Amino acid sequence: MTSAQVLLEEIADVGRDRVRGGYSRHVFDAAETELRTWFRERASGLGLHVEDDQNGNMWAWWTEPGPGAVVTGSHLDSVPGGGAFDGPLGVVSALSAVQALQAKGFAPGKPLAIVVFAEEEGGRFGVPCLGSRLLTGALEAGTARALRDPDGVTFAEAAAAAGLDPDRLGRDDEALGRIGCFVELHVEQGRGLIDLGSPIAVGSTVIAHGRWRFSFTGQGNHAGATLLGDRRDPMLPAAEVVAAARRIARSVPQARATVGRIVPNPGGTNVIASTVDLWLDARVPGSGVRSLVEDIAEAARAAAAEEGCEVRVTEESCSGDVVFDSGLRDELATLLGGVPALPTGAGHDAAILAGHVPTAMLYVRNPTGISHAPEEFAEPADVDGGAAALVTVLEQLCR
Amino acid sequence: MTSAQVLLEEIADVGRDRVRGGYSRHVFDAAETELRTWFRERASGLGLHVEDDQNGNMWAWWTEPGPGAVVTGSHLDSVPGGGAFDGPLGVVSALSAVQALQAKGFAPGKPLAIVVFAEEEGGRFGVPCLGSRLLTGALEAGTARALRDPDGVTFAEAAAAAGLDPDRLGRDDEALGRIGCFVELHVEQGRGLIDLGSPIAVGSTVIAHGRWRFSFTGQGNHAGATLLGDRRDPMLPAAEVVAAARRIARSVPQARATVGRIVPNPGGTNVIASTVDLWLDARVPGSGVRSLVEDIAEAARAAAAEEGCEVRVTEESCSGDVVFDSGLRDELATLLGGVPALPTGAGHDAAILAGHVPTAMLYVRNPTGISHAPEEFAEPADVDGGAAALVTVLEQLCR
Repeated sequence: MTSAQVLLEEIADVGRDRVRGGYSRHVFDAAETELRTWFRERASGLGLHVEDDQNGNMWAWWTEPGPGAVVTGSHLDSVPGGGAFDGPLGVVSALSAVQALQAKGFAPGKPLAIVVFAEEEGGRFGVPCLGSRLLTGALEAGTARALRDPDGVTFAEAAAAAGLDPDRLGRDDEALGRIGCFVELHVEQGRGLIDLGSPIAVGSTVIAHGRWRFSFTGQGNHAGATLLGDRRDPMLPAAEVVAAARRIARSVPQARATVGRIVPNPGGTNVIASTVDLWLDARVPGSGVRSLVEDIAEAARAAAAEEGCEVRVTEESCSGDVVFDSGLRDELATLLGGVPALPTGAGHDAAILAGHVPTAMLYVRNPTGISHAPEEFAEPADVDGGAAALVTVLEQLCR
Repeated sequence: MTSAQVLLEEIADVGRDRVRGGYSRHVFDAAETELRTWFRERASGLGLHVEDDQNGNMWAWWTEPGPGAVVTGSHLDSVPGGGAFDGPLGVVSALSAVQALQAKGFAPGKPLAIVVFAEEEGGRFGVPCLGSRLLTGALEAGTARALRDPDGVTFAEAAAAAGLDPDRLGRDDEALGRIGCFVELHVEQGRGLIDLGSPIAVGSTVIAHGRWRFSFTGQGNHAGATLLGDRRDPMLPAAEVVAAARRIARSVPQARATVGRIVPNPGGTNVIASTVDLWLDARVPGSGVRSLVEDIAEAARAAAAEEGCEVRVTEESCSGDVVFDSGLRDELATLLGGVPALPTGAGHDAAILAGHVPTAMLYVRNPTGISHAPEEFAEPADVDGGAAALVTVLEQLCR
């Protein structure tokens, strides 16, 4: 049997990032394209029929595609310098589970598919869960087409280069209508399962989250020849956003606010930047996320004004609180012997789909508690345990 | 006659930066290599003999190379997204001046050469005036060989790829010994000549300046799943350096402190950075630059400690105050009809050479006062005036 562990090994050298450490696998880049080819081969090897949908998501069908399908899967892209498990663990566990079901002669009573969603991390075009947002209509096709990667390539151009028709991007009622329920297995991205002493949990909620771009404009100039009093340096208000995000988020229970990406332009050591773009990742359970961002934006505007700079704040994505289907959640928890239910601050394609179809998540323990970094991990026994849990779940749901 | 203006036009499309605006021409990249080829062709076309020295600087000799030579020139590389004049103006003015001297049948009484220095901006390998520092021994060859560009390529590797022998990098007594005096013409990088109402000045001083890398280490993690209290986010102390640099420099007369380059790693929107590198450009007239940097470093250490991060501060370059040869300065100012003498906060290869040979600078007015940015400019009449001044100067010095 090809275990999930062996499948992970097969892709262990794809997209390693020699500069950042870990993996950089971004939608339609060489590494992610290699993973797509690998997935097609592995799924085809199990006799599954693989097709790309109009939004760049891949579907591998065991049976004829049809309504009421049980769908499982995750994504193969990563954050820059990410870990080996975030995304791929759900895909390899799905492949492994289907193989195990075939080996025991199981005949699914419902259509069953493995899905691989495109650009879950938003690592290239900025909007996370791009594939599932397009599928469900949560993101306008025109907005998606115009997104640009750091090199200025639009998503429309990248999609066309990958063989998609940019004019066909957008809500896909046919693909969405076939899904009876969706189960995403994912490595845990916090310390919940460590604290609970359990290798597996089912998902309960995903807290509201989004991304906002702060674009500051000042006046580029020479770092040596320009007196301090003559400067309009956008790095100053940008730095204030980093400080303000922490200061303001601290006063909001359970809030998280992060600046992990900042790009001064032109980015020369001896050059006062002319513009600075930074991205604020903000998350607050309940309805407070936009209010948190507005408070940080207010600090940004004040700091920009003080430096004679301008700032424009753009919401790139924003998703409300998600509560996964409680019936499905409880059914799976019981089926797996009473595993705990766990909330998360991490976004997932499952949280996008949850607004449309009954959706559940299975988390696999991460002994480091660290994710989006090379230290992300799952013990081999827990990887096998997760795949075995998925076998149990799929067997039950496909009866 | 091929005027300096026409020569600038010839290279106006080389190395345009479509993302940043302006020009990105970095040592040994495609654009800078194209400019080198262009320079060789233009100099050869004037009958000059062009040779590369062991450090990647180019020398175009009108006469036989020899001691006591009158040397003029500048550089062809740019900061990222820089202007069209910083560097190239000195090179095209030199070519134009030699052509004008030839046209009037001038026979130089001393050897005369045009020099193009490598990596003046430090835009690729971080150390400004890399070519002139190697030539004069101000930078150890071993240190230079180990410098890395943002892609991890070492200067030794890049130099070898450009046809140099990395083992021969370093102080070049033969090349240095041939220079009798050096005159660098350069676009002004501030508002001095606007305020003085003069198209031309001679250089008086360059204030002490240097570059320091601040490397912060924290713990990379997921931006959504990691509670604020569990974080060690190196962006926080990095932002404090930006604020502290301004705050502390403000209290030191004539000081400039700039953070124009900051690189969080891995740089994902939904990722708490594991490390952040930023570069501090600091300049203070007199002996206070290291003390200024130490005060900023102290603020960095305090902020890093508060966030559970570490910080390492590395001096990448540091140059003391430079006073150009007063005799040569006064001689040229008089020769040019009593043009003013101007101090500058900008570093130049001339300031490196000034410790070894009589050196002077000619500045050409920049009506925007802006440099290291696309707005950098010189009026055509001032460009012609600068080249004409260089004709006058070379004619006098080569008698």
